[in-house]
Amino acid sequence: MTPEKLLDRSAKLLVADWKHLKRTFILPENDASRETLVKYMEQILFGLHDFLRTHVGITEAVSLNDLSLKFSDTTINKDPVDKLANVITELIEDIGPHAVNVASPFFIGHMTSAIPFFMVHLKTIVAALNQNVVKLETSKVVSVIERQVLAKIHRLIFEQSDEFYRLHVQSRDASLGAFVEDGTLANITALWVARNTAFAPRNEFQGIEAEGLSAAYQAHDIQRAVVLVSRMGHYSLKKAGGILGIGHQNVIPIEVDAKNRINASVLEKTIQAIKNDPVKTRILAMIGIAGTTETGSIDPLGRLADIAAEHGIHFHVDAAWGGPTLLSEKYRSRLRGIERADSVTIDAHKQFYLPMTCGMVYFKNPAHMDAIAYHSRYVNRPGSVDLGIKSISGSREANSLILYSALRIMGINGYALLINHGIDTARQFAEEIERRPNFELTTHPELNILTYRFCPQELRPDLTSADLSRRRHANKKLNLINHKIQRLQRETGKSFVSRTTLKLEKYEDEIVVLRSVIMNPMTHIEILKSILDEQEQIYLAELGDKTVRTVQNTLP
Amino acid sequence: MTPEKLLDRSAKLLVADWKHLKRTFILPENDASRETLVKYMEQILFGLHDFLRTHVGITEAVSLNDLSLKFSDTTINKDPVDKLANVITELIEDIGPHAVNVASPFFIGHMTSAIPFFMVHLKTIVAALNQNVVKLETSKVVSVIERQVLAKIHRLIFEQSDEFYRLHVQSRDASLGAFVEDGTLANITALWVARNTAFAPRNEFQGIEAEGLSAAYQAHDIQRAVVLVSRMGHYSLKKAGGILGIGHQNVIPIEVDAKNRINASVLEKTIQAIKNDPVKTRILAMIGIAGTTETGSIDPLGRLADIAAEHGIHFHVDAAWGGPTLLSEKYRSRLRGIERADSVTIDAHKQFYLPMTCGMVYFKNPAHMDAIAYHSRYVNRPGSVDLGIKSISGSREANSLILYSALRIMGINGYALLINHGIDTARQFAEEIERRPNFELTTHPELNILTYRFCPQELRPDLTSADLSRRRHANKKLNLINHKIQRLQRETGKSFVSRTTLKLEKYEDEIVVLRSVIMNPMTHIEILKSILDEQEQIYLAELGDKTVRTVQNTLP
Repeated sequence: MTPEKLLDRSAKLLVADWKHLKRTFILPENDASRETLVKYMEQILFGLHDFLRTHVGITEAVSLNDLSLKFSDTTINKDPVDKLANVITELIEDIGPHAVNVASPFFIGHMTSAIPFFMVHLKTIVAALNQNVVKLETSKVVSVIERQVLAKIHRLIFEQSDEFYRLHVQSRDASLGAFVEDGTLANITALWVARNTAFAPRNEFQGIEAEGLSAAYQAHDIQRAVVLVSRMGHYSLKKAGGILGIGHQNVIPIEVDAKNRINASVLEKTIQAIKNDPVKTRILAMIGIAGTTETGSIDPLGRLADIAAEHGIHFHVDAAWGGPTLLSEKYRSRLRGIERADSVTIDAHKQFYLPMTCGMVYFKNPAHMDAIAYHSRYVNRPGSVDLGIKSISGSREANSLILYSALRIMGINGYALLINHGIDTARQFAEEIERRPNFELTTHPELNILTYRFCPQELRPDLTSADLSRRRHANKKLNLINHKIQRLQRETGKSFVSRTTLKLEKYEDEIVVLRSVIMNPMTHIEILKSILDEQEQIYLAELGDKTVRTVQNTLP
Repeated sequence: MTPEKLLDRSAKLLVADWKHLKRTFILPENDASRETLVKYMEQILFGLHDFLRTHVGITEAVSLNDLSLKFSDTTINKDPVDKLANVITELIEDIGPHAVNVASPFFIGHMTSAIPFFMVHLKTIVAALNQNVVKLETSKVVSVIERQVLAKIHRLIFEQSDEFYRLHVQSRDASLGAFVEDGTLANITALWVARNTAFAPRNEFQGIEAEGLSAAYQAHDIQRAVVLVSRMGHYSLKKAGGILGIGHQNVIPIEVDAKNRINASVLEKTIQAIKNDPVKTRILAMIGIAGTTETGSIDPLGRLADIAAEHGIHFHVDAAWGGPTLLSEKYRSRLRGIERADSVTIDAHKQFYLPMTCGMVYFKNPAHMDAIAYHSRYVNRPGSVDLGIKSISGSREANSLILYSALRIMGINGYALLINHGIDTARQFAEEIERRPNFELTTHPELNILTYRFCPQELRPDLTSADLSRRRHANKKLNLINHKIQRLQRETGKSFVSRTTLKLEKYEDEIVVLRSVIMNPMTHIEILKSILDEQEQIYLAELGDKTVRTVQNTLP
């Protein structure tokens, strides 16, 4: 069939009247129309791909400003303005090229990457089934499968007995975890459960969920509730503190060691100080991070588990990033201690390589989530198996079906290949950075994330100078240089690293660093070298002496 | 290509080693492999459809128990257990048939229904692009488009001036709303904003988000915070009260009138009582419902807006269901007053017919969401245009792109056809129910939702009897009968209505009713008649005298 014919036929799909509208709810019976629909899918699978292959795409070729002007009409068209075929073509040809090619092996700046192409097929199945997992009446077998997947991942984390899983996998009384939108909602859910458990019903008091925080503090004779987490904790933890009513100031940042892991001694001293504080304070939870967002560092989970056990504190592990490392025989020991957590966050859209988005939260104790149960008259009735009973959201798509299928297709070993590639490649990258005189490795990769900065040789002596103001001055220069390199490289559109600011032990001030996340299996060391080369070239061509001079002029 | 060849080729897709694994990240270059991938899509589009067409599928042919046994293995396979082709086939042939055919025109029990087939294509595009809308660096143009869509729907609701939208549509300082996972998270977000606005920083106090609820009550000299909503309010509002720390008991249910709309006089008296209460109480928000979940009733929004204005209370409208009625010239006046709300919830996966799930929340005041802003060092920096700054979630998929495209394809008029069909058909259905001597219409459809019950003629006199115990006895019988009819009809698997319990003015006790939601354009009056016929047959064949007798025996 020629493209002209295709377009011609799709003209019939314009939703102009009731007859045509109804037709969009029925898949066509005749072969020609079926072929058209399949052609669209082909266009989606390969059209997008061809465009996206060409660049990373945060280029300034078309500025944000131009795009903003293009998308400023705020009325809704009265009649259909376009046929399906044209809308798909527009998405692929006009919009796709201005999206970001997160699938590029040169895109190593964020925790978003290429996904195996079959994930797109699986997501399409989920959309076509259009099940709502909030209740059995709109999902049936899909709810049953979700329970199974939850048990599989629970087992990967907590390694309970066969008997435990036999009992709980499909039991309506047990909740081993929940699928949520993303890691933020997983962390909120974990702390929500911890909060409600800490302020459970007692005597006349009906619990914090029913009576609220103010009544809870009174009933439990408490003046403040806090959460303890390293200062590298994800910002969603502060957000959780804000939403749950304890106040984000009460999510208390604990100092880290030279490897960006929580300093357990400082943590213990903080706990002691809280216990001695005249302000009566309840510690809702302490958090271990298995893969900090900025540096991929892993807190000493075993040590934290000891402390939590000693003081009877809820121990949550934020393994949104690092959780799937458990699938790697080679590296899973780095997460030792996670099995002693009370709750764990893992994102499936990160290192399980699912499409955006799919968060998960797990609880060791299958009754723990009872603390957040809600019922209604028409669904989620008490005693039903509806998954919506213990869930922050209501209606929810069946992303669990994607993870169920992906585990079958990949197996533990398939995922292990990806995990190992990321960590091994990050190590190679670190060695390469250390070999280059114009770069400084700022954090070693414990997982597949590292940070570094451009650091021209001539500035090195200043950094180790005995003169404090000279050291600070040099870092100020470097901050400016790295800020600019990152922006210019992004705008060139060929490759992308992100940037953040870190407080390292060896420097007085926060420094600007470049951040790399190696999760794309197509990202190999030669690509990484070329990214460093480009950064060096940007410095020489655009910044060099000029920047250094500018900074010098603006400094006292 | 023959199916055998297809299977043969797909054998190569088994992820057994690094080479094959990497291949799943690259779309194939040769025609034959491309054809295979497209074939899978064809199988997904039409295979599922053919299966699902045959039944509603909550049948007991395979019991929940059997399914639970089937999905009870909790280990993760070490090696890949299946090729992609087989996994897709399994999903279509083994799992699909045990999912629920929400697309059937006989499935009229929940707010989940058929979607236009092009929605599946659009969702596939979103998955293939795999953008993360939390920040510009992983979404670029898609964030810009999301802002435009937010402005379009904001305009549909609030009808502000051209100048207003010109200023705010793409301004980094303005937030007209947010895409969230579903209506529950939309309601939580609205009340989160309302809570933070009510307990804003003052003097030394840094605001409830930072310092928490207990400090906020102290700083504002308050002992309790409440939310007011009709007793028909969605259970997510109670959940919001629980999560946000005010306590779900403080989400206060207000009595409704004979049409299940909030009784505005009772509301006013409640507000007055709260003002006179010695317990110092802040009313965080009052809520109007535009389409109650159980009966589709619409609160008198204009009257509520007056009351909110008089008392200076945040006015939230939960239009998760009814919001898109604004697209219908014929029926939009039923929502009059919504334009005076401070915030509005609308679900796009309901009457915008998007795939599961896509919730939205809108704020009239573009600065209102500043109350929930969060920043981090590596994304969402102050002053950036990142959408994740004011959002309950972090990572998020670009469902806004689906709504953007659907509006182009359908136009206001296309959606209006669907809305009008639903309401008009529900009216016809109500008339049919009233015509039948063995049925009682329990709530008239204001939108496209109605409730009724099976009510055998012979019991009618009892219901209007002057003898109270006789009336109550009759209702008790009817509850049992309707409970059973609903279950048996569901288990037969041909059609599905849901059930709930309602407290009607005319009866002393809560009664069990059958609930119908007419949103599928293929659902017409003949189908609805056949559903009533089936219910009548079930009663005659299975229940009849027996039930009546059983109930009589168990009653005093």
